[in-house]
Amino acid sequence: MSYRTDTFRIAMAGPADLSGLTALIENDALDPAEIAAILVKTEGNGGVNDFTREYTCATIAATLAPYLRATNAEVERRIAMVVSGGTEGVLSPHATIFARVPTPSPAANGRGLNGDGANGKSKRLAIGIAATRDFLPHEVGRAPQVEATAQAVREAMTDAGITRVEDVHWVQVKCPLLTAERVQAAVRAGHSPVTEIAYKSMAYSRGASALGVGVAMGEITAPVSDDIVLSDWSLASGVASASAGIELKNNIVIVLGNAEEATGATVIAHAVMRDAIDAAAVIAALRSAGISAADGAAIDASRIVNVLAKADPSPDGMLRGWRHTMLDDTDISATRHARAAVGGVIAGLTGCPAVFVSGGAEHHGPPGGGPVAVIAKV
Amino acid sequence: MSYRTDTFRIAMAGPADLSGLTALIENDALDPAEIAAILVKTEGNGGVNDFTREYTCATIAATLAPYLRATNAEVERRIAMVVSGGTEGVLSPHATIFARVPTPSPAANGRGLNGDGANGKSKRLAIGIAATRDFLPHEVGRAPQVEATAQAVREAMTDAGITRVEDVHWVQVKCPLLTAERVQAAVRAGHSPVTEIAYKSMAYSRGASALGVGVAMGEITAPVSDDIVLSDWSLASGVASASAGIELKNNIVIVLGNAEEATGATVIAHAVMRDAIDAAAVIAALRSAGISAADGAAIDASRIVNVLAKADPSPDGMLRGWRHTMLDDTDISATRHARAAVGGVIAGLTGCPAVFVSGGAEHHGPPGGGPVAVIAKV
Amino acid sequence: MSYRTDTFRIAMAGPADLSGLTALIENDALDPAEIAAILVKTEGNGGVNDFTREYTCATIAATLAPYLRATNAEVERRIAMVVSGGTEGVLSPHATIFARVPTPSPAANGRGLNGDGANGKSKRLAIGIAATRDFLPHEVGRAPQVEATAQAVREAMTDAGITRVEDVHWVQVKCPLLTAERVQAAVRAGHSPVTEIAYKSMAYSRGASALGVGVAMGEITAPVSDDIVLSDWSLASGVASASAGIELKNNIVIVLGNAEEATGATVIAHAVMRDAIDAAAVIAALRSAGISAADGAAIDASRIVNVLAKADPSPDGMLRGWRHTMLDDTDISATRHARAAVGGVIAGLTGCPAVFVSGGAEHHGPPGGGPVAVIAKV
Amino acid sequence: MSYRTDTFRIAMAGPADLSGLTALIENDALDPAEIAAILVKTEGNGGVNDFTREYTCATIAATLAPYLRATNAEVERRIAMVVSGGTEGVLSPHATIFARVPTPSPAANGRGLNGDGANGKSKRLAIGIAATRDFLPHEVGRAPQVEATAQAVREAMTDAGITRVEDVHWVQVKCPLLTAERVQAAVRAGHSPVTEIAYKSMAYSRGASALGVGVAMGEITAPVSDDIVLSDWSLASGVASASAGIELKNNIVIVLGNAEEATGATVIAHAVMRDAIDAAAVIAALRSAGISAADGAAIDASRIVNVLAKADPSPDGMLRGWRHTMLDDTDISATRHARAAVGGVIAGLTGCPAVFVSGGAEHHGPPGGGPVAVIAKV
Repeated sequence: MSYRTDTFRIAMAGPADLSGLTALIENDALDPAEIAAILVKTEGNGGVNDFTREYTCATIAATLAPYLRATNAEVERRIAMVVSGGTEGVLSPHATIFARVPTPSPAANGRGLNGDGANGKSKRLAIGIAATRDFLPHEVGRAPQVEATAQAVREAMTDAGITRVEDVHWVQVKCPLLTAERVQAAVRAGHSPVTEIAYKSMAYSRGASALGVGVAMGEITAPVSDDIVLSDWSLASGVASASAGIELKNNIVIVLGNAEEATGATVIAHAVMRDAIDAAAVIAALRSAGISAADGAAIDASRIVNVLAKADPSPDGMLRGWRHTMLDDTDISATRHARAAVGGVIAGLTGCPAVFVSGGAEHHGPPGGGPVAVIAKV
Repeated sequence: MSYRTDTFRIAMAGPADLSGLTALIENDALDPAEIAAILVKTEGNGGVNDFTREYTCATIAATLAPYLRATNAEVERRIAMVVSGGTEGVLSPHATIFARVPTPSPAANGRGLNGDGANGKSKRLAIGIAATRDFLPHEVGRAPQVEATAQAVREAMTDAGITRVEDVHWVQVKCPLLTAERVQAAVRAGHSPVTEIAYKSMAYSRGASALGVGVAMGEITAPVSDDIVLSDWSLASGVASASAGIELKNNIVIVLGNAEEATGATVIAHAVMRDAIDAAAVIAALRSAGISAADGAAIDASRIVNVLAKADPSPDGMLRGWRHTMLDDTDISATRHARAAVGGVIAGLTGCPAVFVSGGAEHHGPPGGGPVAVIAKV
Repeated sequence: MSYRTDTFRIAMAGPADLSGLTALIENDALDPAEIAAILVKTEGNGGVNDFTREYTCATIAATLAPYLRATNAEVERRIAMVVSGGTEGVLSPHATIFARVPTPSPAANGRGLNGDGANGKSKRLAIGIAATRDFLPHEVGRAPQVEATAQAVREAMTDAGITRVEDVHWVQVKCPLLTAERVQAAVRAGHSPVTEIAYKSMAYSRGASALGVGVAMGEITAPVSDDIVLSDWSLASGVASASAGIELKNNIVIVLGNAEEATGATVIAHAVMRDAIDAAAVIAALRSAGISAADGAAIDASRIVNVLAKADPSPDGMLRGWRHTMLDDTDISATRHARAAVGGVIAGLTGCPAVFVSGGAEHHGPPGGGPVAVIAKV
Repeated sequence: MSYRTDTFRIAMAGPADLSGLTALIENDALDPAEIAAILVKTEGNGGVNDFTREYTCATIAATLAPYLRATNAEVERRIAMVVSGGTEGVLSPHATIFARVPTPSPAANGRGLNGDGANGKSKRLAIGIAATRDFLPHEVGRAPQVEATAQAVREAMTDAGITRVEDVHWVQVKCPLLTAERVQAAVRAGHSPVTEIAYKSMAYSRGASALGVGVAMGEITAPVSDDIVLSDWSLASGVASASAGIELKNNIVIVLGNAEEATGATVIAHAVMRDAIDAAAVIAALRSAGISAADGAAIDASRIVNVLAKADPSPDGMLRGWRHTMLDDTDISATRHARAAVGGVIAGLTGCPAVFVSGGAEHHGPPGGGPVAVIAKV
């Protein structure tokens, strides 16, 4: 199988504004049947009562259903949609659309990443998708979710045509959370869920998902037991990005990397931010993706398709020896603070505020830090 | 008169934590009688109901009063205190203390800024303070405040020993606002205040103050009439930083610049950010202050005494062609968003989150942008 | 024409939860073709970035479209939908559905309100709907909107079969606001809109709409000129409830009252709260609707279909001689504070938190107060 | 010992406004040496970063120190100060001052509460204060805190001259929380604190304190073990009101009740609200304190010295069968929602917004409810 990965970043005037998407379709720039995944940043609060996420999902489904001659539910199953709420500070609401365009025979890539392939071909942006089985409530946030996620990552790599873990640069996971109803069902069935608090279950689910990515990537080699989740912070993945949602019971996995089988005009690279202001990591990721700038000069922002990053307040309340106040603010949630700051760091370096910064980074890189990836035009 | 300007940046564990200040005094690093000004970032919301500002001021006065054998009120009159609320994102609560230490004879400065002085001396960080008369309520936000501020800036320059406007790099102004009581008094006296809304009067007072700085700096040459304030955005100062407070009726002006008469180990430089993510301006200000870095390498953060900046959401709702959502968020005020983002930009570039970023930048540089200054060790 | 007014109050588990509505339809309790209006309280923030309002509207349209064999847009035109965001404090998200069921001949009402009708009939809850023409941007918040609203109220009274203004107890108005685009269009056409700030235009549009209701009700007899809107607070309506939305350019008017032509099991009554804690007005409205309680005993909450009220912080910052802090809180908007408090007052008196309390009450009763209506089963 | 309890409720224009207190002293209405306790509602957010609490305490101490010829620290030890942040909705910032005025011989009380005393005397408002020893970090939120609190309540009853638990109507407890430093100290000493999260430790400390009150009151008769705290919600006190603060390591207990030994013009009574809108309980407490109204008529608010209440969102998310959204709001903390609503309920019934409603009611009455007390003039 060979395919070309096309990417489109569109501005959104609100959670239901998909005029950019329909324009691409109407102008024949995008075949809706080839859309593989859509990553969205909406202007909700990113918290429990952020209804912009489901509103955007529902609107995407309703918008594409006629084009795909499918029901809304079929669209939601067919296209991997990840909607992250929160455009604090300079962050700008936008969607990134990934399409897989079948190509009859492997086209010869030009200049790509990571040296030439086995047959003299370069690698280009590849995308693969897989899903786990539905989890029972008491499996969420525990070893079964870790293992099933790891397996799904491997399947998504195969789907993408990526053979080496070194070629994986971002693994977006959409994972379930525990509602009161699911908790009650577990208890009635004689099981004990990892937590009875919905908000806390989001952290457990994200954490177990990130650990699953780490296992698949070989970053974690020892067996992962239940009690490691949200406990042993030395275990983490440098390419994971998990976000929990109420609308599913299994994990959906999107692997982004570079592959010989993939053609197109873009590549992806990543680095790991050690804390929220680790500009050096962002610069390193940009450079790995082929984008650099002389000291002080602006980089060429037009070559950046998007920057993806995870933001988290450092749990010890300190940053480079100075106290931060994100965890103690009763008026603004810590995640909102962190997204605003990391958005500033990245937009300052790239000159573009339409970047995908999402919050909640348990076992995603070091505490207070997280992965950052750059998708760039070759 | 010759003097040495000493600067100290101390961490604060809360709005009333002045242990860093008392330690400096107790360890004989700082003579309390020589404190000229204190600039503080507190962890309040920076809005109308931010009581951390007055709490910190009151605590500074109560802390220094015994050392200075003065009443609290006398301390508040004697030392210029500017407290800015809001440490959103990575920003860290801290205070910067400026002391003027008399020196018997002009010491020969070593390597300084802006070439050698007339007598082969270099220029070093200088500080001067002045105050306007009290304003009548209907003068706030209008031409009389502009003119009186311009005059006070000139006096503060003289106080600092700065002779050329090119040597001024930051003018911190503390200005009054209109309470309901003051508005009523004006109306009873037959005058019409510029606005009857307290919150709005803060913007008018900041705007008129910044215009006054612009007049003194020669950035604005035409006469400033009442109707220009908050109206003609082409008029602005690139070195002004005004913040309004309920506790005073006049303007307090602190001029920071470089002067031959001043000695010490630090210099100051500035640039103007054209928008909230103008990293190039921050880098330019750092470089002017003698701090630069090879591409990708970290700069030497230990040489930075502080970075001072104004943050503002661009009023047209756009940033580099992308929509921002700061002005439409009913849950978080636009100023809080802006401080978080600009704090991220600067902390990302300098590696230090203890920077002085304050909000509300009417007529401070271009709309959506604002001045940024760097105080650095030589 | 004779008709029966049926009312249904359904709980909502989220902005898109219409399971209560579809259950009514599927169980044949409600013919979707007879739905006249839907009033909804959603759990958004009620501010500029409250997307739950449009999300709920879109979901209602998508839910009813198949039943009505109409497009979503046709449903939105056919059914008057008013969605008010904000369920602060104890307020509970819910929808109230009003259906007009044609009846072949005037049924003899039993015990109703306001004594017997001309033919010995009692009056029951009546509902009528009308719309104004689209407004030009510079008409919003000015006399033309006032006049057109007054005319639409008269038409809606006729539609409801109400002949006397004394029988009108609630006039819900949905009115437009001025976006930046509309403002620009007005300026280009040589007109000057009443304000250039979107948020402020909501207040002007609500105020002019409420004044229009007051004119139709005979509460305001002198001609209303442009400069009275948001200025002369002595002019107000005690039955108006206007809310501004971005999705329309004209005013939609829903009149609720009692009429002989209307049959059914419910009546409506109202009173005017003089401030946010005017429990006596709520008790008076309950009593007028036939619901009262002995001192200290609970009233029969099961007889209440809904309570409708407007909430507003008193603009002078005082309440019964004590200072309130709603207008000075930079973290929580004043409207959210006011809804929470008024919701507590009403829920405390009625024992039910599913009440329709909406914010922003310019020219709706006295400053800081507003109308309160009770729809009750006979 | 006999004494007269004087009470004063003063408005505050801000957290540092004690002009009402100094006016009482300067006008000889209050002898500062006789102040026993001060209860304050400030306009902070009532959360972790609410600095108005300590600001008000510090200002009270600084204000009274000269009058008492004592240091600020001595004032804070001598007078029991309880400052609760959060005046959401209609709540008004104010302070209630309790003074104990020695009386040479038992004055014959006039009409009081609870029938005549043994010697034909009536009972009047009595106040007593006691403190526990400092707690070790691992004792907070556990049985030792419960037991020590119970003992302190008994001592405070004795101090007040109250002999029967039926005469106790409000027990205000100020209790410690666990900071990161205290947690670390406990761990180093080989102990395991009840939680490592500062915010959570506030709930544990409040819960254990309320259970201690319940033990002293005889409401809880079985031994209280560690695992009951924040777990067995059937155990609660109907007169407890605990709030946690960072500034102390022990529990301060203020008992308010009626006693024969106490004279003066006021009495206290209480009831238990079963949920946030339990108006019947408020009315019952008013009636017990001698204040009632004919149906619909306003009560005589001038006879109310203050109403004290605890507010809490019901933990199951439901209220009288309807869903509330307080626990799911990421923008406004649940405690702020609850205070606004309960403040509306009480102010609606009493006609006065200057009531003491504080949040966080673990083991204070039933879940979602809490005690309410009325101090009234005879």
